[in-house]
Amino acid sequence: MTLIDGKATARTIKQEIAARVAEITARGGKRPHLAAVLVGHDGGSETYVKNKVLACKECGFESTLIRYEDDVTEDELLACVARLNADDSVDGFIVQLPLPAHISEQRVIEAIDHRKDVDGFHPVNVGRMAIGLPCYISATPLGILQLLRRHGVETSGKHCVVLGRSNIVGKPMASLMMQKQYGDATVTVLHSHSRDLKEECRRADILIAAIGRPGFVTADMVKPGATVIDVGTTRVADPSRPRGYRLSGDVDFEAVKDVAGAITPVPGGVGPMTICMLMLNTLAAGERKYYP
Amino acid sequence: MTLIDGKATARTIKQEIAARVAEITARGGKRPHLAAVLVGHDGGSETYVKNKVLACKECGFESTLIRYEDDVTEDELLACVARLNADDSVDGFIVQLPLPAHISEQRVIEAIDHRKDVDGFHPVNVGRMAIGLPCYISATPLGILQLLRRHGVETSGKHCVVLGRSNIVGKPMASLMMQKQYGDATVTVLHSHSRDLKEECRRADILIAAIGRPGFVTADMVKPGATVIDVGTTRVADPSRPRGYRLSGDVDFEAVKDVAGAITPVPGGVGPMTICMLMLNTLAAGERKYYP
Repeated sequence: MTLIDGKATARTIKQEIAARVAEITARGGKRPHLAAVLVGHDGGSETYVKNKVLACKECGFESTLIRYEDDVTEDELLACVARLNADDSVDGFIVQLPLPAHISEQRVIEAIDHRKDVDGFHPVNVGRMAIGLPCYISATPLGILQLLRRHGVETSGKHCVVLGRSNIVGKPMASLMMQKQYGDATVTVLHSHSRDLKEECRRADILIAAIGRPGFVTADMVKPGATVIDVGTTRVADPSRPRGYRLSGDVDFEAVKDVAGAITPVPGGVGPMTICMLMLNTLAAGERKYYP
Repeated sequence: MTLIDGKATARTIKQEIAARVAEITARGGKRPHLAAVLVGHDGGSETYVKNKVLACKECGFESTLIRYEDDVTEDELLACVARLNADDSVDGFIVQLPLPAHISEQRVIEAIDHRKDVDGFHPVNVGRMAIGLPCYISATPLGILQLLRRHGVETSGKHCVVLGRSNIVGKPMASLMMQKQYGDATVTVLHSHSRDLKEECRRADILIAAIGRPGFVTADMVKPGATVIDVGTTRVADPSRPRGYRLSGDVDFEAVKDVAGAITPVPGGVGPMTICMLMLNTLAAGERKYYP
């Protein structure tokens, strides 16, 4: 069994990015610049944004953090987005989700210039991804593609089962895995209304679990030798931990690791890849890789 | 076995649209207005556009046909698109594909204001469709959804197999069939690199064939009682026909009809629905149903 180490892979990719940035600046080019907009003081969001700023440093990027209190109006936030769209010094930016309930996340996402949308959530990027055109691919699916590639998991012609149909993981993952230029796999998408879930999972050469139900995937749902990618990160109460919880994946790791041919742990699998993929998208933004 | 009659269904829908237009105009509203841009004299395109103009008449729409010769430049065509974007009297418009090789189809599609893109090919519409937001859905997948609904084919929790991964049929069809608000089905996408094609097809409660290979789906690939939707329309030489060819579907209709629970014929199945769905999208454009 191969343990797919997302932490180590992310470290390698960040080093590659830093090397590329060194090349760019050596010949007088500009450092890629990521701006992040953070609204309020949600603990999770604070941590994510802090880690994104740290990752920028590791990659040699410039970064800017813009903070608003919880009572910011939608108009104020949209004005901030407009300023960032117009700011030539900013190559890409993100608005950290979730936003307070009085603000329409979709309206904010659609206000972002798709050429700076390094989160890949704007409909133009979602649509271009679906039809195989160059674009920013959102971090989690892109991270999974990178994990598969960099760990030599053959996908072409294989049967890939995606468990979950969320807009940020299940759907884009299915879309990528079926496309010739990415996964080129036979893809099945399962969800809460699917029948024969266990049997369907057992048919997978590559099983991608993204339903947010701790330990849902048990050993009897995995074909011997299959690659298992665990996207779940649910907080489960655990008094023995300093924070009072631990992160639990969708896969019963201890049991499944003896059946799978390769598997990602939680934490340390898909998670560390996501911020790293945001960095990869920011590098692409700085280099105008997808849009002029 | 139920024959799913696309011609009759399309007729019914066009009558419903015409009734709606009569309501709109009775209270002083404006008739929906579709413009079509046709480049060159390709026989197929001529016929399609002619039928679109006829369908507009049946629906009580206003229609405008704009013609260019084969040697129109991309800039001229883009200027035409810009004029149609700006023309408030036009609710929706299409540029008939294919375009001559010296013109970038993608550039033309992306130049169309997505709020008037009744073909549903603009990345904004593709992307919004993928994440379940209101938008124009392209004609063939929308027509198949309508056929399934109007013929009482239950899709929720069923296994839907999509044969083919084209941008205009396979991919959007898979995306729609997996979404809770549309098909809510377990979806498998098969293509040229898939293994065990026959066996995978035989697992389908709903089989949607869109690979453009005449007669590819044989009786042994269909589960007894399954619903079979045939999107194929390949011209096959047939000296006995006045035109020298007949349209052949991807399904061996004569053999499969005895196994399937419901099946669409070719011609007369999915085909007649596509122009009708363009009309439905134009009605939606006239009513500003998806975009203000």
